[in-house]
Amino acid sequence: MGRLHELFAPETVAVVGATDREGAVGRAILENLRTDFAGKVVPVNPNRDEVLGLECHSDVASAPPVDLSVIVVPPPYVIDAIRDSAEAGVENVVVITAGFSETGGEGAARERELREVAAEYDLNLVGPNSLGVMSTRAGMNATFGPENALEGSVSFMSQSGAFITAVLDWANQQEIGFRDVVSLGNKSVLDETDFVHEWGEDDGTDVVIGYLEGIDEGRAFVDAAREVSEDTPIVLVKSGRTDAGAAAASSHTGAIAGSERAYEAGLEQAGVLRASSVQELFDWARALSGLPTPESDGVAVVTNAGGPGVLTTDAVGDSRLDMASFTDETIETLSEAMPDEANVYNPIDAIGDADVERFEEALDVALADPNVGCAVVVSAPTAVLDYDDLAEAVIERSEEHDKPVVTCLMGGERTRSAEAVLRDSGIPNYFDPARAVSGLDALATYRDVSERTYDEPTAFDVDRERAREILERARDREDNRLGVEAMDLLDAYGIPIPEGEIVDDPADAHAVAESIDGDVVMKIVSPEITHKSDIGGVKVGVGDEDVYDAYEDLVARAHNYQPDATILGVQVQEMLDLEGSTETIVGMNRDPQFGPLLLFGLGGIFVEILKDTSVRVAPVGEDEAAEMVDEIKAAPLLRGARGRDPADVDAVVETIQRLSQLVTDFPSILELDVNPLVAGPEGVQAIDLRLTVDTEEL
Amino acid sequence: MGRLHELFAPETVAVVGATDREGAVGRAILENLRTDFAGKVVPVNPNRDEVLGLECHSDVASAPPVDLSVIVVPPPYVIDAIRDSAEAGVENVVVITAGFSETGGEGAARERELREVAAEYDLNLVGPNSLGVMSTRAGMNATFGPENALEGSVSFMSQSGAFITAVLDWANQQEIGFRDVVSLGNKSVLDETDFVHEWGEDDGTDVVIGYLEGIDEGRAFVDAAREVSEDTPIVLVKSGRTDAGAAAASSHTGAIAGSERAYEAGLEQAGVLRASSVQELFDWARALSGLPTPESDGVAVVTNAGGPGVLTTDAVGDSRLDMASFTDETIETLSEAMPDEANVYNPIDAIGDADVERFEEALDVALADPNVGCAVVVSAPTAVLDYDDLAEAVIERSEEHDKPVVTCLMGGERTRSAEAVLRDSGIPNYFDPARAVSGLDALATYRDVSERTYDEPTAFDVDRERAREILERARDREDNRLGVEAMDLLDAYGIPIPEGEIVDDPADAHAVAESIDGDVVMKIVSPEITHKSDIGGVKVGVGDEDVYDAYEDLVARAHNYQPDATILGVQVQEMLDLEGSTETIVGMNRDPQFGPLLLFGLGGIFVEILKDTSVRVAPVGEDEAAEMVDEIKAAPLLRGARGRDPADVDAVVETIQRLSQLVTDFPSILELDVNPLVAGPEGVQAIDLRLTVDTEEL
Repeated sequence: MGRLHELFAPETVAVVGATDREGAVGRAILENLRTDFAGKVVPVNPNRDEVLGLECHSDVASAPPVDLSVIVVPPPYVIDAIRDSAEAGVENVVVITAGFSETGGEGAARERELREVAAEYDLNLVGPNSLGVMSTRAGMNATFGPENALEGSVSFMSQSGAFITAVLDWANQQEIGFRDVVSLGNKSVLDETDFVHEWGEDDGTDVVIGYLEGIDEGRAFVDAAREVSEDTPIVLVKSGRTDAGAAAASSHTGAIAGSERAYEAGLEQAGVLRASSVQELFDWARALSGLPTPESDGVAVVTNAGGPGVLTTDAVGDSRLDMASFTDETIETLSEAMPDEANVYNPIDAIGDADVERFEEALDVALADPNVGCAVVVSAPTAVLDYDDLAEAVIERSEEHDKPVVTCLMGGERTRSAEAVLRDSGIPNYFDPARAVSGLDALATYRDVSERTYDEPTAFDVDRERAREILERARDREDNRLGVEAMDLLDAYGIPIPEGEIVDDPADAHAVAESIDGDVVMKIVSPEITHKSDIGGVKVGVGDEDVYDAYEDLVARAHNYQPDATILGVQVQEMLDLEGSTETIVGMNRDPQFGPLLLFGLGGIFVEILKDTSVRVAPVGEDEAAEMVDEIKAAPLLRGARGRDPADVDAVVETIQRLSQLVTDFPSILELDVNPLVAGPEGVQAIDLRLTVDTEEL
Repeated sequence: MGRLHELFAPETVAVVGATDREGAVGRAILENLRTDFAGKVVPVNPNRDEVLGLECHSDVASAPPVDLSVIVVPPPYVIDAIRDSAEAGVENVVVITAGFSETGGEGAARERELREVAAEYDLNLVGPNSLGVMSTRAGMNATFGPENALEGSVSFMSQSGAFITAVLDWANQQEIGFRDVVSLGNKSVLDETDFVHEWGEDDGTDVVIGYLEGIDEGRAFVDAAREVSEDTPIVLVKSGRTDAGAAAASSHTGAIAGSERAYEAGLEQAGVLRASSVQELFDWARALSGLPTPESDGVAVVTNAGGPGVLTTDAVGDSRLDMASFTDETIETLSEAMPDEANVYNPIDAIGDADVERFEEALDVALADPNVGCAVVVSAPTAVLDYDDLAEAVIERSEEHDKPVVTCLMGGERTRSAEAVLRDSGIPNYFDPARAVSGLDALATYRDVSERTYDEPTAFDVDRERAREILERARDREDNRLGVEAMDLLDAYGIPIPEGEIVDDPADAHAVAESIDGDVVMKIVSPEITHKSDIGGVKVGVGDEDVYDAYEDLVARAHNYQPDATILGVQVQEMLDLEGSTETIVGMNRDPQFGPLLLFGLGGIFVEILKDTSVRVAPVGEDEAAEMVDEIKAAPLLRGARGRDPADVDAVVETIQRLSQLVTDFPSILELDVNPLVAGPEGVQAIDLRLTVDTEEL
């Protein structure tokens, strides 16, 4: 039982601002509570003795002990009302009233005050600007929406109150039930992370679903959701996926939009199933709340209709599932049981004259097959097939074998009663085979989420102090950017860099070149000159005897190109044998919600033109770093495709982890790019570096 | 009025094999016809005088004049029954009876006979193995399915009879109407191409939809659909999209599966909108049958609910449409008309207390904006919003501005009557914003299809006879494969190849090398050795003095590698300056349904690892060839990305067209690969070639 238990299961609810004025929100809430709530409802309003026949109190202190206060007073009175409740010992508060940060200046100040009061009394506070909360645990509808929820095991949070009213009206018609429903409002105190926590501890919640427009504390949410999703599936629609949508969401909630890629990575790392539409949200929720997870990905399809059978097979092909390959025994048993014209290979086509008995037999044999993890029953209406009986048969067989079965009993009116029977047993029926398979797909995805283990980020032995000193140098820069002159930062974190030094004098350059075996590479070092090659700022294969001239030439070119550029010097570096190695990029930028977002890809066209990159929220463990490498389309190139020697992928994976540690240790690093990180059979070398430092954070 | 007009609008229909036996198909059809058909129904059965109260005739010849015969006699009597009808002057025949090619040997022979009789009498024959045909023109249900269709303007063909029964039951509940419905059965005579033609000429058909598992004559279908889709949208589900689905479809219909990529390319070239699920098929059909096409892609969203507004915006972002950018005038007008809290930028959030009047005003202003091509009205249920009135307002505004509007009035029961009102005016309502936007998306896609023009394939001046002679050489080969020795084939079709020759003697090699400026490239030529480089079968930069040794060495290596390989000789070729050029691949393989399928991509990893290729059914015109180049993700590399000189893309496009002409001229070419075709700033050069020839076709 979580900390928010009482919020959803109060014995007494006060409506502060209760009124009997027609059309008032304070009346709507009171009416909704009176209708179904099993507990006690207490109107609070200093100007009334009685509201809707209930005794009205002038303040919460003078009322009987209250577990939850729902506040609907006008904005200027909200803070006092919260304080009044808190002083009376109330721990749970829902602020319905709008007119806070969503309205700008004055409202924002009021919201800060609200947050302070909540912190002072350690309140569980929902809102402000919330439609309210519902819980079918005791029939509580503490919202001003027009409909109460039906009972069920899905707990639902939404950053849009209108979305709740729209969904409930529809869900009631579809007979989809809920456990708790929360309109998050401005999320001033309690937010998505708190409710994920709470419902993770609630035995009555089988699935958590949500509509979110933003997640304020990305990393905290990832950590909470990761833990909860081991036992309880979480399905979210996070809107603002597209550029247009993000702009609209930002205008709706006033939140600064984090990047879609950060959400994509963060939600995946959190084990959240991310739905892209309302339909998908509920299709998945229905499957996840009623069915066991499949032990394997093999799907059996049983049908009386060839065409719909093929459509279902296509949908399986589109999904992460496979068509199960039946054992010889299954084929044999089916051949005996089915008519000659039937197809006993998967999809099983029991043909048009199949009755319930034949369907049941085929399903029974298929579910008994060890290669079958789940099944779809697909039927077209025929004169010999009774849908109600078929529904019963499907329920029995699916329970007997304890494998998830979804149905696609196609048709209109005639499917109604069968659908209701199936629903009562947790089996969703869909008209479209693609949606039926999508339900199973969600189950299999969730199975993998629940079985997932996460490597703890490795704590490498690094020289943190040296790194800090190097970052401090950014203070001296006007634009807070560091470049190749900060390569030692990587060295401090154990990332291999070529031998060499940055010097500001041709004689020193010569000395460094002499200390290095063979020819050297020389590069101009200037924060203003980012594309060195373009201005001839790089010289490759310089012999010791040419170092003087090369130095002067590099400096001259840089002055020529950009007279006001700060020239920090020239880098003299050992020349690497890059034959047979591959250029990669490892980068990071800091997302406003999720924090450091790591990026990996191959260099050049792969990142710039093909956009073939992978991202993760840092810190990452070894497995996540390895996934980043495997995930890019061009990964086979690193693994030795087309006759190349495989690169040392382990070294790449370790570099990603070390960078993860660096950017986690130093919140002052806003952006960082190691480009290229050259990966060859013998290991990796970071060749160039750019980073931006927030000197305030140092 | 097409050739099949009478099939759908007969005055008299004979049911050959009519019976009153309970459960018999011959009874079901007669009953279905009797129920709604406005014309005359004539039972035919030599063993009955009367069936279900109707006078029964012993054969069609003795019946009154018949326009359509529906044949349900047992398989052995079908041929005679067809002949009997034909002799009596009947031109339209539907064969319901199964037991033809779908059952193998004997049935296949019977189907050949059926085809012969149909050809002899020039019959319009549907089936065999068909559920029948329906037409709401005169209430005709000549099927044995349980439901007749409602009246509408969508004509529907299906290769699965069960799919029709499943869809009709559902469509009747959804009040979706149809014009004609055909169960294609085995498509022995009439197939999808015939019906596309027919419905293209039928004024009563606004949209053609279909469920197909295969298209027998791909190119003929492309040509027919291209013409029809100028005026009438065609939406198809072609199942067997995935490998698993293709196997299932092939087992269901017995058809040899063509490649999915051929279908993908062919249907796109045909102007067909390809739906991937049943839901999408009908979502699109509903939009296309009732709404005008939008003149531009700008979408306005009008809502009373922030969250659903953002979801809709995301859906627009996912689609080919854009959120319209409002003019200053629109913003100004909206600002005056809407409350302060409203958002007057797109999506327009008229906020929660919006009544119908405010919705209507916002929609009116938005639709008047020249940047708006279409609109979505999205609403959550509230106390102040009447859905029925909103429906009326939406209809009026959309008709006034003649712009398509779809709605997403969210909710359950309360949306029912509004939905019906909208439906009567052709406006589809969806619960999910994503589906509403998908409907508009289909309209915009269809607008582009209908406006599309196609370049005729250019007939280049080529040396066809020389090409034929080169292909003839394949006769002498055991495996019908030709390689680099057939490069002159390309030359004959005007595709540039490097200067050079294949010789079988070191002295000749020397002579050729001397005749070429500079060093040469030498390659072993053997049909069995396909990866020449791997065995050291290629020498680059050979000077005249080294040609002898190089020749002997190449031959020795080839013998070493594969002692029994046929060595055709050594190719001595000018050395091209490939600096700054890009390797591309142009290939072709012949699809069983669509014929020659052209492929284009960049060489090496782009094709092999990244699978970055484009395909088209040949012959292609200049525009389609150009699309092939533009469509690949790596296209920017050819166009001069990352500081490279742009390649001569026109020369690439011309090469694709010339190859298209070659493979169209010679059906004997089964497969062909020009790999690489090197594209540089100065033009292209084909460097290597492989092809397989069907010597029977020569």
